[in-house]
Amino acid sequence: MSADLPIGVFDSGVGGLTVLRALCAVLPEESFIYLGDTARLPYGTKSEHSVARYALQAADELIERGIKTLVVACNTASAAALPALQQRFSEIPVVGVIEPGARAACAATKSGRIAVLATESTVRGGAYSQAIARIRPEAEVTAIACALFVALAEEGWTEGPVAAAAAERYLAPLRAAQSRAPDTIVLGCTHFPVLKSVIASAAGPGVRLVDSAATTAQEVRQLLVTRGLQRVPGGAAPAVSFLATDAVDRFAEVGGRFFGAPIAADEVELIDL
Amino acid sequence: MSADLPIGVFDSGVGGLTVLRALCAVLPEESFIYLGDTARLPYGTKSEHSVARYALQAADELIERGIKTLVVACNTASAAALPALQQRFSEIPVVGVIEPGARAACAATKSGRIAVLATESTVRGGAYSQAIARIRPEAEVTAIACALFVALAEEGWTEGPVAAAAAERYLAPLRAAQSRAPDTIVLGCTHFPVLKSVIASAAGPGVRLVDSAATTAQEVRQLLVTRGLQRVPGGAAPAVSFLATDAVDRFAEVGGRFFGAPIAADEVELIDL
Repeated sequence: MSADLPIGVFDSGVGGLTVLRALCAVLPEESFIYLGDTARLPYGTKSEHSVARYALQAADELIERGIKTLVVACNTASAAALPALQQRFSEIPVVGVIEPGARAACAATKSGRIAVLATESTVRGGAYSQAIARIRPEAEVTAIACALFVALAEEGWTEGPVAAAAAERYLAPLRAAQSRAPDTIVLGCTHFPVLKSVIASAAGPGVRLVDSAATTAQEVRQLLVTRGLQRVPGGAAPAVSFLATDAVDRFAEVGGRFFGAPIAADEVELIDL
Repeated sequence: MSADLPIGVFDSGVGGLTVLRALCAVLPEESFIYLGDTARLPYGTKSEHSVARYALQAADELIERGIKTLVVACNTASAAALPALQQRFSEIPVVGVIEPGARAACAATKSGRIAVLATESTVRGGAYSQAIARIRPEAEVTAIACALFVALAEEGWTEGPVAAAAAERYLAPLRAAQSRAPDTIVLGCTHFPVLKSVIASAAGPGVRLVDSAATTAQEVRQLLVTRGLQRVPGGAAPAVSFLATDAVDRFAEVGGRFFGAPIAADEVELIDL
């Protein structure tokens, strides 16, 4: 296994670019190859069986191209497929975003009351509740499926009356719990960090918002150190390349908002899985 | 070709059930088989190439099961694939929803100014503008991509502050045109009829809303009459069956809202395309 290989990052579409952004910040010497399965997004309303099948196909593609670590930068795919991916690709580390998100939440909460905002599929599977329970068994977890946040993030409506009204509708029941309200909210979908400010306003004062991106990046860094897989500075400049299974123009245009930097459409390679 | 065969209806998911509902109302003696490609929805953000490929696969499945007519109850698939479908399956009538929607709009407008609300893909392809121009070349068509309406319809948020704010944001530019504002709006996505009342409020008084469902159903009836393919009353009772490529529970739950009648999950057959 060569330390010079890139790190593979996989998501259903553009949301995982928030995780790639955190990885690039924490690991500036590393190269990355990002695969967005835009032909089959969103995963959040699909069955676990289908999501797991898609995730294995995407991982196959990245492994064939040569990667030293795989990051599943999609909560839905992490929830549905992480054990299957770790079993099939046992030769490299495979990291999901659920465990890091759960750890971030457990570190942040004081009251032990945590709300998880996620897609339908992630909520239905209960992966966050289980991951949090393993770390902090006495925690009280409320999970809320927030499908509209995905559409709002993709449309770029991250502020303003529509986003505010949607956040209010999803979060009002949490505030209504008053003294039993959660003190920590996990943004359990990689689309949601771009909606952080409206979610924070609707959650009310004193509630901490955590997401998986930074914690996942730290976990990947730690893994590379432990396994001696860090890229040595010098030599070729680190590179980031993008693959998408459909609509590369849209990937570039919408993706820039999540990555926090422009992506040119001709930088994105169209692939078939 | 037997008149006793069912009519095949195809959509990316549950939106086409608004068209099926209109078909059932106009053709109470007919049987229907509805296929929702829920594994790959939504089509509206995918490329034309992918949508056309999916539509051909879905049509193959329905033709193999035996149908006497195919209705493409999805604006995006009609725009991307109708000529290809008509060419490949020349032995049966293949009807889309764009032409009927365009005809309904041209019949409704007095000023000749028409707005089309549709998905990104339908707007990008320009199929409605072209279909309207063929009927009424002097018409002025404004097309607006309303991605969030799909998510709102699927979430069941068809009224209330979030839907109202979204409709306001998409439609305010139309009202701002004042005396040049459209007098007719085409609901150019089968998800949108369930949002009719908030769209009407945001459009303002005097604007007519049309959708393809009723016009498409009339066109199918006419075709059956012309070709002598109407089912003769008597014999086995007409039946409606449902196929979905993923998540049958969700299809049944969300689909009931679009169909206007409950659908039981065990009535929905899971298929792979």
